[in-house]
Amino acid sequence: MHLLRTVFWSTGSSRHALADRLEFSKSKANALTAGLIEQGLLEEIGLQQSSGGRRAEMLQLARSLGVVIGVDLGATSLDVAVMRPDLGILAHHTEDADVRAGPGVVLARVRELIRELLARCGVSPKKVIGIGMGVPGPVDFASAQLVNPPLMPEWDAFSIREYLGETFTAPVFVDNDVNLMALGELWRLQRSLQNFMVIKIGTGIGCGIVCHGEVYRGATGSAGDVGHICVDLAGPRCHCGNFGCVEAMAAAPAIVRMATEAAQAGESPALAQLLRANGKLTAMEVGQASRNGDAAANAIIQRSGSLIGQMLASVVNFFNPSHVFIGGGVTQIGPLLLASVRQSVYHRSLALSTRHLDIQYTPLGNQAGLVGAGALAMQESLRLHGVRE
Amino acid sequence: MHLLRTVFWSTGSSRHALADRLEFSKSKANALTAGLIEQGLLEEIGLQQSSGGRRAEMLQLARSLGVVIGVDLGATSLDVAVMRPDLGILAHHTEDADVRAGPGVVLARVRELIRELLARCGVSPKKVIGIGMGVPGPVDFASAQLVNPPLMPEWDAFSIREYLGETFTAPVFVDNDVNLMALGELWRLQRSLQNFMVIKIGTGIGCGIVCHGEVYRGATGSAGDVGHICVDLAGPRCHCGNFGCVEAMAAAPAIVRMATEAAQAGESPALAQLLRANGKLTAMEVGQASRNGDAAANAIIQRSGSLIGQMLASVVNFFNPSHVFIGGGVTQIGPLLLASVRQSVYHRSLALSTRHLDIQYTPLGNQAGLVGAGALAMQESLRLHGVRE
Repeated sequence: MHLLRTVFWSTGSSRHALADRLEFSKSKANALTAGLIEQGLLEEIGLQQSSGGRRAEMLQLARSLGVVIGVDLGATSLDVAVMRPDLGILAHHTEDADVRAGPGVVLARVRELIRELLARCGVSPKKVIGIGMGVPGPVDFASAQLVNPPLMPEWDAFSIREYLGETFTAPVFVDNDVNLMALGELWRLQRSLQNFMVIKIGTGIGCGIVCHGEVYRGATGSAGDVGHICVDLAGPRCHCGNFGCVEAMAAAPAIVRMATEAAQAGESPALAQLLRANGKLTAMEVGQASRNGDAAANAIIQRSGSLIGQMLASVVNFFNPSHVFIGGGVTQIGPLLLASVRQSVYHRSLALSTRHLDIQYTPLGNQAGLVGAGALAMQESLRLHGVRE
Repeated sequence: MHLLRTVFWSTGSSRHALADRLEFSKSKANALTAGLIEQGLLEEIGLQQSSGGRRAEMLQLARSLGVVIGVDLGATSLDVAVMRPDLGILAHHTEDADVRAGPGVVLARVRELIRELLARCGVSPKKVIGIGMGVPGPVDFASAQLVNPPLMPEWDAFSIREYLGETFTAPVFVDNDVNLMALGELWRLQRSLQNFMVIKIGTGIGCGIVCHGEVYRGATGSAGDVGHICVDLAGPRCHCGNFGCVEAMAAAPAIVRMATEAAQAGESPALAQLLRANGKLTAMEVGQASRNGDAAANAIIQRSGSLIGQMLASVVNFFNPSHVFIGGGVTQIGPLLLASVRQSVYHRSLALSTRHLDIQYTPLGNQAGLVGAGALAMQESLRLHGVRE
């Protein structure tokens, strides 16, 4: 199985690059891959552009193996995709969702969407290799259950695996959404970065950690729970019971609250007009107002970015990552948020931690979670099935 | 080399426990160890107490291999030891030191102490397998040099390896002091804990990180630099240029400063008397006053512990370790400091991160750095020499 996993983590590599990565001789790699091609587990996909000499065949997991399902559930959104073993997307659907409706309602919709998308591709449910799902809360990875999720208390200890297992025979794997964003980026990078972080800023603030080239989940699975790091001892009370948590002061609901106050105080005609028209504001509208030059909106986004940067500075001093990737809905606000985060981190962190630190939006954009869900399904299914090589 | 390293990391284990750990059959493990015993690399050390049945022989690295040297240099102290391959101490010397005297002065003393201790044991310098040294600043592990060390600027890019290499032929390995405390505890635990932190509180505050069962040094070697995490935006200016760093507000110099102010303000007759007698105070004296029931000393220690706990709460939310071990000179203050740290962390961290979190003083006490230096020397020498098995 080691070779199949290596092929999956090296999608688009030649036989020879694979042999190097596995520390096999070329002849051993050739013999092994020939066997796996014969068994229908691997296939060749044309010729790779080479820097000189003869061109090398690229290998990938055989499409005939089946498909994987990726599910990315956010606090307010749901993405489902059917993917090839190389995580190429065959069908994808995205819609608004509300996790507070409870697991019964939400998972019924997930099941329905999986069926619809499979039918759209003409793929039988029997051809599903694995299902990977990201959820916006702390997960016990072994049992695939949420543990005391603050945003979705009804999901506590609910068996997602059992629910989906009634309909699909494929194994079901569940992880925290931002862990899967980190896994998605790690897969896309073919593990070329060993130590980095992914921050998701949306309804809450969470962090996925890659350490020594693997997603790090912590001693009890709650690593990366940075939303409740204190950034102001005199700050407002958070739903967790503490004061001044970065999530309570800088995530989407805080941006909306600050913008509503600014509109009501007459500090922003643009936001006041939107508030009158719709009865409420969204973080996206604050971003739009900022891009249009609204001073109050700019100040709110800078404040949010600065607080997030303050939290990140602590974490970067501790973890010294090579990259921080920022994702989640709030990143659609635009470049001002990223600039404010960067300014705050570079100001507060030690020179040594930040001298080579790269802070940018997630390269996979809003697909990071979905790619990570597919990578989880494929990786864990390969581990589970243990096909003999 | 793999088996020798496994024996080193399993000091005191039986052949059969070793075979389990290596996932070898008993017969393969027996054959390999017999060969290594014949080559003089391993030796048997009597019989292990067994829970039943016949008793199994314990294996260890052969004493005839030679000795390792451990050097633990703190900002104000120097420890040097000669150790057996199983890190049993043959000779040990500790004395006050001042790293600000520069590498020439300090390393000449290190060299002299190594020679003296070897002579005391009757061991030739040629029998030194490796030298491991911890230093109180950020280290580039590959070059064994300090990089911009704030406490010891004269050491920047000084080649410790070259200096000691003029006298000793054994390879020299250098790491940050608190990374070596973490390595020492990891070795003592035989890697039974996979994810933990060691905090050193002395002149500065630093952190060693163990992640996935290995010491984690970060993308550029500065992981664990927690001393400059901000705990009070309105706090005093730190030598790093920022405000409210935990090191500036809670490490030994801050404790001494607060105690001196309390003595001068007439808040503590006990501290005032010590100040008059000696012209200055030490953190140890503040600890002694606290243990004698001095209210001002108690308040100072509680404040220091609370600020350190506040920094730790952020880091624990992010990293979710199973254990936090606290070491360094300031721990000699006594149980009140530990109690204050615990109270602050448990108050501020998410329930999920702290439900099973264990916070205690380093089990190896003030020997953690020295054991870590020996472990570094042995581990890296085994890796370097690549003796064929």
